Amino acid sequence: MQKPWAGRFKESTAPFIEEFTESISFDWQLAKFDILQSMAHVRTLERALVLTPEESNTLLTGLERLLKKLEDGSLVPDKSLEDVHMNIETALTREIGQLGKKLHTARSRNDQVVCDLRLFLKEELSNIINELKLLRQRLVLLAKEHINTIAPSYTHLQHAQPIRLSHYFLAFREAFLSDTIRFINAYKSSDVLALGSGAVAGVDFALDRFYTASLLGFNKVSKNSIQATSDRDFVLDALYACAVCGMHLSRMAEDMIIWSSQEFNLLELPDRLCTGSSIMPQKKNPDVLELIRGKTSRLYANLLSVFVLLKGLPTAYNRDLQEDKEPLFDSLKTTLDCIRALNLSLEGAKFNVNRLYELSQDLSVMTDLANYLVKKGISFRDAHEIVGNLCAKVIDSGISIKDISLSMLKTLSEQFEEDALELLNPQKCADARIAFGSTGISVLERAIENAMREEGIS
Amino acid sequence: MQKPWAGRFKESTAPFIEEFTESISFDWQLAKFDILQSMAHVRTLERALVLTPEESNTLLTGLERLLKKLEDGSLVPDKSLEDVHMNIETALTREIGQLGKKLHTARSRNDQVVCDLRLFLKEELSNIINELKLLRQRLVLLAKEHINTIAPSYTHLQHAQPIRLSHYFLAFREAFLSDTIRFINAYKSSDVLALGSGAVAGVDFALDRFYTASLLGFNKVSKNSIQATSDRDFVLDALYACAVCGMHLSRMAEDMIIWSSQEFNLLELPDRLCTGSSIMPQKKNPDVLELIRGKTSRLYANLLSVFVLLKGLPTAYNRDLQEDKEPLFDSLKTTLDCIRALNLSLEGAKFNVNRLYELSQDLSVMTDLANYLVKKGISFRDAHEIVGNLCAKVIDSGISIKDISLSMLKTLSEQFEEDALELLNPQKCADARIAFGSTGISVLERAIENAMREEGIS
Amino acid sequence: MQKPWAGRFKESTAPFIEEFTESISFDWQLAKFDILQSMAHVRTLERALVLTPEESNTLLTGLERLLKKLEDGSLVPDKSLEDVHMNIETALTREIGQLGKKLHTARSRNDQVVCDLRLFLKEELSNIINELKLLRQRLVLLAKEHINTIAPSYTHLQHAQPIRLSHYFLAFREAFLSDTIRFINAYKSSDVLALGSGAVAGVDFALDRFYTASLLGFNKVSKNSIQATSDRDFVLDALYACAVCGMHLSRMAEDMIIWSSQEFNLLELPDRLCTGSSIMPQKKNPDVLELIRGKTSRLYANLLSVFVLLKGLPTAYNRDLQEDKEPLFDSLKTTLDCIRALNLSLEGAKFNVNRLYELSQDLSVMTDLANYLVKKGISFRDAHEIVGNLCAKVIDSGISIKDISLSMLKTLSEQFEEDALELLNPQKCADARIAFGSTGISVLERAIENAMREEGIS
Amino acid sequence: MQKPWAGRFKESTAPFIEEFTESISFDWQLAKFDILQSMAHVRTLERALVLTPEESNTLLTGLERLLKKLEDGSLVPDKSLEDVHMNIETALTREIGQLGKKLHTARSRNDQVVCDLRLFLKEELSNIINELKLLRQRLVLLAKEHINTIAPSYTHLQHAQPIRLSHYFLAFREAFLSDTIRFINAYKSSDVLALGSGAVAGVDFALDRFYTASLLGFNKVSKNSIQATSDRDFVLDALYACAVCGMHLSRMAEDMIIWSSQEFNLLELPDRLCTGSSIMPQKKNPDVLELIRGKTSRLYANLLSVFVLLKGLPTAYNRDLQEDKEPLFDSLKTTLDCIRALNLSLEGAKFNVNRLYELSQDLSVMTDLANYLVKKGISFRDAHEIVGNLCAKVIDSGISIKDISLSMLKTLSEQFEEDALELLNPQKCADARIAFGSTGISVLERAIENAMREEGIS
Repeated sequence: MQKPWAGRFKESTAPFIEEFTESISFDWQLAKFDILQSMAHVRTLERALVLTPEESNTLLTGLERLLKKLEDGSLVPDKSLEDVHMNIETALTREIGQLGKKLHTARSRNDQVVCDLRLFLKEELSNIINELKLLRQRLVLLAKEHINTIAPSYTHLQHAQPIRLSHYFLAFREAFLSDTIRFINAYKSSDVLALGSGAVAGVDFALDRFYTASLLGFNKVSKNSIQATSDRDFVLDALYACAVCGMHLSRMAEDMIIWSSQEFNLLELPDRLCTGSSIMPQKKNPDVLELIRGKTSRLYANLLSVFVLLKGLPTAYNRDLQEDKEPLFDSLKTTLDCIRALNLSLEGAKFNVNRLYELSQDLSVMTDLANYLVKKGISFRDAHEIVGNLCAKVIDSGISIKDISLSMLKTLSEQFEEDALELLNPQKCADARIAFGSTGISVLERAIENAMREEGIS
Repeated sequence: MQKPWAGRFKESTAPFIEEFTESISFDWQLAKFDILQSMAHVRTLERALVLTPEESNTLLTGLERLLKKLEDGSLVPDKSLEDVHMNIETALTREIGQLGKKLHTARSRNDQVVCDLRLFLKEELSNIINELKLLRQRLVLLAKEHINTIAPSYTHLQHAQPIRLSHYFLAFREAFLSDTIRFINAYKSSDVLALGSGAVAGVDFALDRFYTASLLGFNKVSKNSIQATSDRDFVLDALYACAVCGMHLSRMAEDMIIWSSQEFNLLELPDRLCTGSSIMPQKKNPDVLELIRGKTSRLYANLLSVFVLLKGLPTAYNRDLQEDKEPLFDSLKTTLDCIRALNLSLEGAKFNVNRLYELSQDLSVMTDLANYLVKKGISFRDAHEIVGNLCAKVIDSGISIKDISLSMLKTLSEQFEEDALELLNPQKCADARIAFGSTGISVLERAIENAMREEGIS
Repeated sequence: MQKPWAGRFKESTAPFIEEFTESISFDWQLAKFDILQSMAHVRTLERALVLTPEESNTLLTGLERLLKKLEDGSLVPDKSLEDVHMNIETALTREIGQLGKKLHTARSRNDQVVCDLRLFLKEELSNIINELKLLRQRLVLLAKEHINTIAPSYTHLQHAQPIRLSHYFLAFREAFLSDTIRFINAYKSSDVLALGSGAVAGVDFALDRFYTASLLGFNKVSKNSIQATSDRDFVLDALYACAVCGMHLSRMAEDMIIWSSQEFNLLELPDRLCTGSSIMPQKKNPDVLELIRGKTSRLYANLLSVFVLLKGLPTAYNRDLQEDKEPLFDSLKTTLDCIRALNLSLEGAKFNVNRLYELSQDLSVMTDLANYLVKKGISFRDAHEIVGNLCAKVIDSGISIKDISLSMLKTLSEQFEEDALELLNPQKCADARIAFGSTGISVLERAIENAMREEGIS
Repeated sequence: MQKPWAGRFKESTAPFIEEFTESISFDWQLAKFDILQSMAHVRTLERALVLTPEESNTLLTGLERLLKKLEDGSLVPDKSLEDVHMNIETALTREIGQLGKKLHTARSRNDQVVCDLRLFLKEELSNIINELKLLRQRLVLLAKEHINTIAPSYTHLQHAQPIRLSHYFLAFREAFLSDTIRFINAYKSSDVLALGSGAVAGVDFALDRFYTASLLGFNKVSKNSIQATSDRDFVLDALYACAVCGMHLSRMAEDMIIWSSQEFNLLELPDRLCTGSSIMPQKKNPDVLELIRGKTSRLYANLLSVFVLLKGLPTAYNRDLQEDKEPLFDSLKTTLDCIRALNLSLEGAKFNVNRLYELSQDLSVMTDLANYLVKKGISFRDAHEIVGNLCAKVIDSGISIKDISLSMLKTLSEQFEEDALELLNPQKCADARIAFGSTGISVLERAIENAMREEGIS
């Protein structure tokens, strides 16, 4: 097939090279946006008197027909045309004749592809932002449900201090809230019209780019044509937001994988979210959570890929930039899927309330015994040591915290009184934490209330 | 040395393990902030009636003395104490006696280190933001200086279309503007008080954390103690901003390296920014620019390092998190240095105005010839082919664009008239680009004016 | 569809989860190898008396039929079956009835997938090793062709010392030779039979795994079933070899991109390897080389992806490991394509011999003038300074090296004699380099001869 | 300070730029090797008659004195000299006078630094290879010790099948064996003399490079001077070996962290390898293991850093290459430390034999019940389903596997007989695995015997 840029060429592209350089196998995903921007471009050309109203009408009608064909599946990519832009333009010319060749006036694939990509990104990022909200709502509902579930908290995968389980869910809600900020920042980076920048130096027609922007719903217009055609920061911003979100998803998945082990036994996943073994009949594996954890790798890799691509490139468009799309498409889909998969996992998981309580009844209440001594005037450092000795004693003798007696405490410090024994209760211990952001019931209840309002749960 | 947490331990740490786990060799950088937060913590404890005014005064006096000793260099880290926190606390106890042991009340190293790191980051990010402004001012001044320098623009490292060189500098100003947004986002992520979260579950003293925040200049207070102690998103945000900025620096450095080759000869670097060869006497190498390009690698690597660290960690604090600091410290310093180094390079570079003009006089004006035909009613695609044939002819015959005659044009299309020849002039070609964001003089002059105002250059 | 492991399950997998967890969309690439290993497995089961000869025959006939159907395209994957293993087994049961269900005896998908992957890798790595040989042969032939082409060599993208162009081609041959070693190492890592390891603990049938290995052409048999099923080092080794090779390809592509700029003008690429611009008729861009450079990013990213995947996984099989395949498949194909693309680029490139010679006539001969003084007894450091001063003089006065006179030299050092002027000749300068590995003709000729013999060129 | 290459320069380097470009703050680590190579260089120059025997002697004496001073700490780097090479040369000139200036004859920093780095790497890699052997020996001894410890094996962090614990240790021995291969490959890559390649084009003195190689203990001599000075593959090979090894270390650390949780309780770490909490007196955290896991991040990052550095560089030396050292130094030290730390952790860990046995008594024996049916002629797929139903029944009724009766089995399949009940024993189940590489005692004992011989344990 004759290339539309082949005027000065004497040989046609080698077949292997055609295949090596094509992008239609993946950029066809942008087809809808390529048509939409073409429609806005036609109207802008008409306003700039480059096209007559009749030409404009014919072009718009043709483009609308393409849009319908795309939706009903009758418009399919032709591999012999390099990319989505050439495909759409060729389809248009087939549809409405020679006039189609006027479409590419005052436009280059360099600004066109950026425009498509930005439109695409805005849609995809909105979807992710919505899905994240659903996940946060799930977490808030779980927090509400588990306000009376006492649980151990972990640091270093060792019991730290007792908490109410709500506190755990709200922690992850905070993480996913911060992801939302990152996705909104990425959305803002995308929300800039690049069309009208030409190949690199701008266009020599008096296009009203602010009009184009308003037609396409862009909030800003790019200010420098070199930057507009070679900048891929907005791609990085999206990939970065996906990578951080994936990390959060992976951390929560890791918790849930560990918690659903036979040994922890803190939660049970429903059969519909697990798969079995082809050989071991007893197996029920948390595959979905493992895949969430595993898929974070590609989110990192995709970000890195575009970073590596861009470093050290001379300015303005280089063909290397074609490689930005596959990682981006993959990250957006992966992120959306993983958010949904975690949401489903949380929906299905049954938290083992009794086991959680049982595990919280251990030495993890000891900080409060130290603080008890602090309140009696002993310095925290000395109190820490006294209670540390108590811990060693308890562990060595193999007793439970319920067996700790006042006389035992007295041998360590005369300051201990009867009321110290009351602190050896995980619920009391949790509720003693009353500073803003802590796990105590008074603080938590207000936190849940606020969260419900913020997430629009009534 | 007896560890402050050793109450329950029967063996002391193995010496190799002490060395393997220590962080004082790098976290001493946080010393100033550790003292400052301790001062705010003391005042908060006093307000919560945990400390008497007298205790508070003594502690504050001790901490102020430490701050002075830190400044004058007489406070130095003791390697046998694990980290900066233990060092400061021990120094304080040496300074004011047993009362120093009360400092750690209602505080854990888990919330403490996050607080230090956030204070540190806010300062460092402010420095970078300032340095970036200086760089952008340089670029705007260069844009103003080179408003009449006609130059080739490049895509694919091939001549594209003539531009005014100002347009090139403004392109990079846009890039560094977008970096500033990323650094401000990172600053906002850092600007949250984590102190008062304890080890993980919060604190059991009625601390007024909003008071602490106001003392330390934090804009927000963390809402969940689990998240506050285990979240390192704010570190990622800073590392990410550094990485993207590094990429921009690297791209501009790459341009300047290529431009200063003998073959391009578009700019000359001053001797003070170059180094020679130990063996080749004629050499003058753009080492500074090469290092800017090279140092981007570590900015990417540092970001990746913390990303890898965090993936798959079970929630809340794990000791792995200690590994967040070295990459962060390195990226902040590297970024600041590289911005400064590029600024110095731009300050010293002499752009070869004549050579730039000479190179712009070539086939890069051809798009305008195609657009000429478009304005005569030929479709852009057909016009592109006609002019492509002209290019082939010019290249084959080895003539210069100045030798193109009207009769030559006529053989390709009857639509060409005398005025077509006027388009074969790079300055005219540049100035024909008049859409917003283009390189034409009318657009550029306004862009420079705006940029000067925005950057505070009068 | 009823899952083959569903005996203990009460709910079927959720549809979104089916899609989220499936691997058949990419692991179908392993179908051939899954059939081949099944054939070897059947024969091993027969030898272990688990299957009767009749059963074995029927199974083998069925599998052979599947192999043919796969080749002629009539065997296609069924998306509702999770993966390639379940697809093949189900197809077999459809083909030969209930007996097909015996195929999975003494086998788990955990050892099966590793076996498939290793067979696949051995084939793909062989292809890459062959393609690399073709590339090296091209380089050797170019070295032979350009033995008399004098060229500048570059360090820091600045002229260093004159070389014969052959030397440049042989440098890259060394790089690609070292890649071959890495690919052979990766091949050796792959060349181990994992089948017969079961899910994790081994198999409880007396399978003769050495017999299986010989049937499948594996050189070694894995020694530990836990390691055999959870180890992905062989995948990393392949991805690493691809990444390093990609880096070499990218560096050569970068050279060629710079060399084909108008300013350097050291080589011209044929039209069939270039593409044009949709807007600028004069453009001929080195897209193929830019894509080679750009595609290195994904080679790095794929390696990183699997690295991140594996870090911190608890031992033995985790579902995360499913994510190893896409990066691997992508890297192998990308590497093969890029090697081929560079080979075609070198085949088509026309090196501009005259321009190369012209550029080598400059100050890059100066090291020899310093060495001249060394041979007269001056220390190298002093000689370097004397000649450095000469360079400054030449640059300031704007003369060419041909204009340097003996009297000019004498003003700098009395040691210079008439014969010093002869050194100002790039060919002489190149040929003076006579130590092993240098660019002098005597050394180079032997190097080319050896290379031709080693690469099997007569 | 006057730079030794400053003959043609008119300005001295700017102070900030001196700091920005210096490498002495890290490359001083190479000082020993820089002196050693200089000694070999002197002897080679003497052999080539470039130096007289007297000159050679004086230089060698001077260099030997420097070596001693380096060892006793009296030779320290001077920051104002750019790098280690200039430091050593300057120190030599101070030591023996003007003759020192002859040292740099026929040598460039470009080949010199590669030579230093290769010598350094050979030493460091040998240390790592030794340390890995100690770790493998530890694992083999543990395997021997735990031959009678029955334990659950895990896949997906769920119980899979019972094993003997030895099998687990031998699995990791295999991993660390494969690391050793990678380190040996890296060693071989390093074991090439680059000195004698000059700056890029070779040297114009008849140096006998094979003689130099034999003096320095290099096994090979580089074949192409361009490649020799710009190739950093050997650095990548070392960084890659470190990264894979780190991944193995991280996976074992992850196991041990999980196993030492209160819930798993499979092992206890000694106090000397743990640290406590500054706030929670009961805490004993597996910090060492967490740091091993965490430090893998930097091993990945360092590899990536050099990869990114190299991509897209034009050939031959560029100053970017200076950035290869810090990541390399860091990875070598980190790897060595982490191997040692894991070895110490394994040495100190007490595996909880009773708990391991107790946990292995569960449904993880079920595969054998399915295989029992297979041996009675039922297809594996059907057997899997029958036993899957049994599992569901056991779980629902909350009974233990010890309560499974023959009649219960009979309701599921008539094929079950009395002997089936014997299979419900984890030790029997483990020992049934008899294929090569499995966990059965017969296979394991031979494996341990071989391993002891191979690791030189008597």
